[in-house]
Amino acid sequence: MSSKKKSALKQSEGVSNPEITNQESISNFKSKRGKNLNSDTLVSELLNGNITHLSRAITLIESTNPEHTQQANAILKKCLPHANTSIRIGITGVPGVGKSTFIEAFGKLLTAQGKRVAVLAIDPSSSLTKGSILGDKTRMEDLVKDKNAYIRPSASGSSLGGVARKTRESIILCEAAGFDVIIIETVGVGQSETAVHSMVDFFLLLKLAGAGDELQGIKRGIIEMADAIVINKADGENKKAAKLAKVEFERALHLYPKKDSDWIPKVSLCSALKNDGIDAIWKLISDYITLTKSNNHFINKRNEQNKFWLIQTIENRLKSDFFNQPKTKAALEEQLQLIEKNKTTPFAAAEYVLSLNKSF
Amino acid sequence: MSSKKKSALKQSEGVSNPEITNQESISNFKSKRGKNLNSDTLVSELLNGNITHLSRAITLIESTNPEHTQQANAILKKCLPHANTSIRIGITGVPGVGKSTFIEAFGKLLTAQGKRVAVLAIDPSSSLTKGSILGDKTRMEDLVKDKNAYIRPSASGSSLGGVARKTRESIILCEAAGFDVIIIETVGVGQSETAVHSMVDFFLLLKLAGAGDELQGIKRGIIEMADAIVINKADGENKKAAKLAKVEFERALHLYPKKDSDWIPKVSLCSALKNDGIDAIWKLISDYITLTKSNNHFINKRNEQNKFWLIQTIENRLKSDFFNQPKTKAALEEQLQLIEKNKTTPFAAAEYVLSLNKSF
Repeated sequence: MSSKKKSALKQSEGVSNPEITNQESISNFKSKRGKNLNSDTLVSELLNGNITHLSRAITLIESTNPEHTQQANAILKKCLPHANTSIRIGITGVPGVGKSTFIEAFGKLLTAQGKRVAVLAIDPSSSLTKGSILGDKTRMEDLVKDKNAYIRPSASGSSLGGVARKTRESIILCEAAGFDVIIIETVGVGQSETAVHSMVDFFLLLKLAGAGDELQGIKRGIIEMADAIVINKADGENKKAAKLAKVEFERALHLYPKKDSDWIPKVSLCSALKNDGIDAIWKLISDYITLTKSNNHFINKRNEQNKFWLIQTIENRLKSDFFNQPKTKAALEEQLQLIEKNKTTPFAAAEYVLSLNKSF
Repeated sequence: MSSKKKSALKQSEGVSNPEITNQESISNFKSKRGKNLNSDTLVSELLNGNITHLSRAITLIESTNPEHTQQANAILKKCLPHANTSIRIGITGVPGVGKSTFIEAFGKLLTAQGKRVAVLAIDPSSSLTKGSILGDKTRMEDLVKDKNAYIRPSASGSSLGGVARKTRESIILCEAAGFDVIIIETVGVGQSETAVHSMVDFFLLLKLAGAGDELQGIKRGIIEMADAIVINKADGENKKAAKLAKVEFERALHLYPKKDSDWIPKVSLCSALKNDGIDAIWKLISDYITLTKSNNHFINKRNEQNKFWLIQTIENRLKSDFFNQPKTKAALEEQLQLIEKNKTTPFAAAEYVLSLNKSF
């Protein structure tokens, strides 16, 4: 580790800059920085709402260095009694729908009310695309300067499970640091909406009005997850199309079975750019929170989410431990070919592959 | 084993009669019968289309006796080169929708064309309800007498996975016995539609017209799986409502993304009781088969299904081996309580539970 890696210049770039591709130098740097931190100081500063220390704690969570992971776990444990206090909102939408503009307008509305707002992201593709969401903080230039706002780009990582875990633990830290509203943004790559949906209280789908057939091309299951569909850019010439889209989405939502929350999903129009209709969306979310806190859905859902992540984490590990074994891979390949040739059944093949690994 | 249990009377009741609850006597009986069978004879008779021997082979598949399982696997292996020749059709619908009447009318249409039709069922609840579907063969009294038809009630079993496996293996035997069309009926308990969908070429949802709002109450995901929605009992006074329902379903189907098969799901009306519109449904299925065989979706889907069952069987076993351990159960219980009390995170809890079982 050269002294160059500890220079102020390197530090200002940090891990959140997706342009850095020299992973080794990053982890060397982080490893060095981690050692300089005292967990107790970090936690007490974090609990006082110190954003620099919050960022450092999140960096520890994101680190792949086992020593950092241990430190991160100790910090998490100390933060847990102070967590679970915020409203967690998931926001998804395709690129170009105006997520950043929406989050900026929405975040400013909340900070103007004295609320503290943290914005996190889940983007498992960010290591490939060099941070397609939140990577460029200039897209939220007002919010980024706001002392009551905290914006953190997506953790990088090749697996959605890993990224989701880091984000979920970051939520706990943000809550302990006194943030009232946590926004989790996702661009909807792979199963990332499902991951976000499983860690938020309220799930918002951002859409644009097009030329009819609004629902074509929406990924399966997304509409079912939405507590609200917000049609953005409903201004000027777009307004008429947006109103038509609203009717179509309302009809589509109507087709789904009633939600456990007793909440009837809403469709709302807004223009984030013109700051129009944003307050109505906060009102809608507040109504949802009031309803679900009164009927206990709020707490039940959080408990269910915790259980989901517990079981999910265990199952994923069991599967990866098994399927990543070279002998499993080879046997699967071979058995699949035998199945295609009508020489064995999937069940007999499964028995065979499992029998090879009895001792793993 | 008393001689009484071997009497002709007992034999005529057999395992397919759901009234028998003395499981021990049944398995004693089956065990005795199994030993009398010679696998080679059984297979050659089965390949000649002998229904009695087909039934015996399916009984071996359904048996929990390890000796029978071994024999069943040997039979399956010999049948495999003769399998994969049929058209597999899944039919689901709530009780009262007229599944039996529909299958009877549909089956008779096919046998009249000289086709051989086998009807199997997946009903994981059958051990509780004593066979709610196909248990009472008198509901298909014409088809049951038809020499070109074979009707087999659902295997019993507490787990859907187990029942699905038995049904899937029975399909292979039916195909080897020369059946051209295999119908898999399910009543839609739990995840049984998904299981059926994963073993058929064509998935048909049977519905009734109601008083508007046809889609309310349909289980999530079912519409997406359907290759056709057939509205039954479209006769007399129901006809108008059925036509309205058809429009609503067509609109709903239109909302979903295009299928990999390039097939656009169809909505059809019929009256199984009056034998009206049944031929159009067979025409529709034939069109689907022609399309998907020409674009290779047919074979690709079967290969995907085989892979699905292979991976699914392995994963289920990994999970059940892990979660059924008493120490896992106790640790999960304890960790869930710690999570609810904000004393640990789902991820830390997962690590802990996994670490307990490193040696399993």
